[in-house]
Amino acid sequence: MKILLSHGDGGSLTNQLVKDVFRTAFQDEFLEEEGDASILPNMSGRVAVSTDTFVIDPLEFPGGDIGKLAIAGTVNDLAVSGAIPQYLTAGFILEEGLSIERLKKIVQSMAHTARDAGVRIVAGDTKVVERGKGDGIYINTTGIGYYPIERRLGFDQIQPGDCILINGGIAEHAVAVLSERAGIGFSEVLQSDCRPLNKMIYALLKRFHSVRFMRDPTRGGIATTLKEIALQTKMDMMIQEEFLPVRPRVRGALELLGMEPYYMANEGKVLIIAASEEADEIVSFLRQFPDQEIAGRIGTVQTGSGNVWLKTPFGGTRNLGMLSGTPLPRIC
Amino acid sequence: MKILLSHGDGGSLTNQLVKDVFRTAFQDEFLEEEGDASILPNMSGRVAVSTDTFVIDPLEFPGGDIGKLAIAGTVNDLAVSGAIPQYLTAGFILEEGLSIERLKKIVQSMAHTARDAGVRIVAGDTKVVERGKGDGIYINTTGIGYYPIERRLGFDQIQPGDCILINGGIAEHAVAVLSERAGIGFSEVLQSDCRPLNKMIYALLKRFHSVRFMRDPTRGGIATTLKEIALQTKMDMMIQEEFLPVRPRVRGALELLGMEPYYMANEGKVLIIAASEEADEIVSFLRQFPDQEIAGRIGTVQTGSGNVWLKTPFGGTRNLGMLSGTPLPRIC
Repeated sequence: MKILLSHGDGGSLTNQLVKDVFRTAFQDEFLEEEGDASILPNMSGRVAVSTDTFVIDPLEFPGGDIGKLAIAGTVNDLAVSGAIPQYLTAGFILEEGLSIERLKKIVQSMAHTARDAGVRIVAGDTKVVERGKGDGIYINTTGIGYYPIERRLGFDQIQPGDCILINGGIAEHAVAVLSERAGIGFSEVLQSDCRPLNKMIYALLKRFHSVRFMRDPTRGGIATTLKEIALQTKMDMMIQEEFLPVRPRVRGALELLGMEPYYMANEGKVLIIAASEEADEIVSFLRQFPDQEIAGRIGTVQTGSGNVWLKTPFGGTRNLGMLSGTPLPRIC
Repeated sequence: MKILLSHGDGGSLTNQLVKDVFRTAFQDEFLEEEGDASILPNMSGRVAVSTDTFVIDPLEFPGGDIGKLAIAGTVNDLAVSGAIPQYLTAGFILEEGLSIERLKKIVQSMAHTARDAGVRIVAGDTKVVERGKGDGIYINTTGIGYYPIERRLGFDQIQPGDCILINGGIAEHAVAVLSERAGIGFSEVLQSDCRPLNKMIYALLKRFHSVRFMRDPTRGGIATTLKEIALQTKMDMMIQEEFLPVRPRVRGALELLGMEPYYMANEGKVLIIAASEEADEIVSFLRQFPDQEIAGRIGTVQTGSGNVWLKTPFGGTRNLGMLSGTPLPRIC
């Protein structure tokens, strides 16, 4: 069975698809109600919202697929902002001819990841475009969470002297996807780091009170994210190349591809800026979580003027800008 | 200037595009903060959420464009559920080669429609796909609103004897889009009804307390929407063909196309189910609003078993199912 244009016309086939594929997988009372909008329970306090669209190519990659990514990506955007992710919506653009079996697998992967992260999928929409006007499936997820009143995270909390930490090896998502795409065959050993981080971040913020800011370095890698932070704070981010955690196989693949790890996308990483006093303890804490054993301190915040400086092992210093010039399309 | 793949890689061109196009048009402090998530003010009460993706072809049509549609569509989904729309997120999938001028025009149309509806665009995301893997632009909007505690709307409120009302002429959106697509050239006289209905619905619900249920009959037309209501309530929806408001030029175009008005999409219409005592007063109220002068009562709810019956002017009766068999792709 394949997706037909009629699956998107809002009539009987659309209804059938929603019932057979989406509601079966997501099993949520809000979806059963079939309302135009889902009316959620009372939310006390501030509401956090984030949206992300996923167009990754290929749809499956070592360590995940577009479904897992679509949940983890939006959950992580909420979590790094300090919010507790609770609800997601899912908007699908299906290409005519997509196999319904393949769609089911992706949707089940979404459902599984959402359960894992403890979030509910409460509203959805499906459109179909003609063959050649899409690429199998594109997914938008929008997340809603609550933002605890006592939380104070933001660019304005960052101070000179703060430490820059990361929860594990960088560039793993990009390398897994690029190698799969190129058929290079690293797949067996290179897995994307794609995963929801909300539970880990919840525990982190509960235990440590000097966390100033967090951001997930997805597209553009840690260099682009640090540059965004530098520009917003007008401080300098000083990172040491030899402190950047990169797994040997990832490093090998990057050398082959001629790419720098700090511009490569991550999907299960968070840059954490925290007071130096707590930095070591936070690193020890981070290392307890699965696949985070190489978490580490990678640099410091200094007074400055919005630059990111990379200190090389040979004593040199490079001024890093945002990713530019080497397009890495559809990495998420 | 055209959209390049690098506009989607999360680096400097993405940042430039967001600044030049999206933030300039939407001008919202939440977007200025550049957070991973936007932290909204306290919301008291229940929160309503709805998501919709727009893939309409062509991007511009008489009476609107994909930008206006993307705002109105989600605002209306919230409004018909009884919620007060407040915030929207916007996720863009751009095709490599899209003209940036054209994108700006669409984004300005979104901004204009959002201001008109009194909603704020508080979060966004942009992805780029290769030429031939998209069709100019696809937009997801997700809406958040609050749901007043006293509101009681739902399938379970519908009672036999209730009246079925509509706020104006049907099939106008579909006919405007189809005629534009086919180059038939009705364009001068046939305009889509695409518009946000939230202010009208707010006034309606404030004044009338017997409204039981509302739904916007978009894809699939009023027949499909009524069938959904019939199936959920297990009652019968009885409508009279001669009471269906259809503007003469729309009727003429439909005859040419060989299509029934009750299966055609609307983007500025709402089906209202209300107690018969208030029905006439509601119709008079609806007729005061622009382009709603042919609002009317089109049928009644009866005990039954989930059917939609169309009474023809010649005394016949047709059992209407959901739209099926005639694909009307990418109408929204």
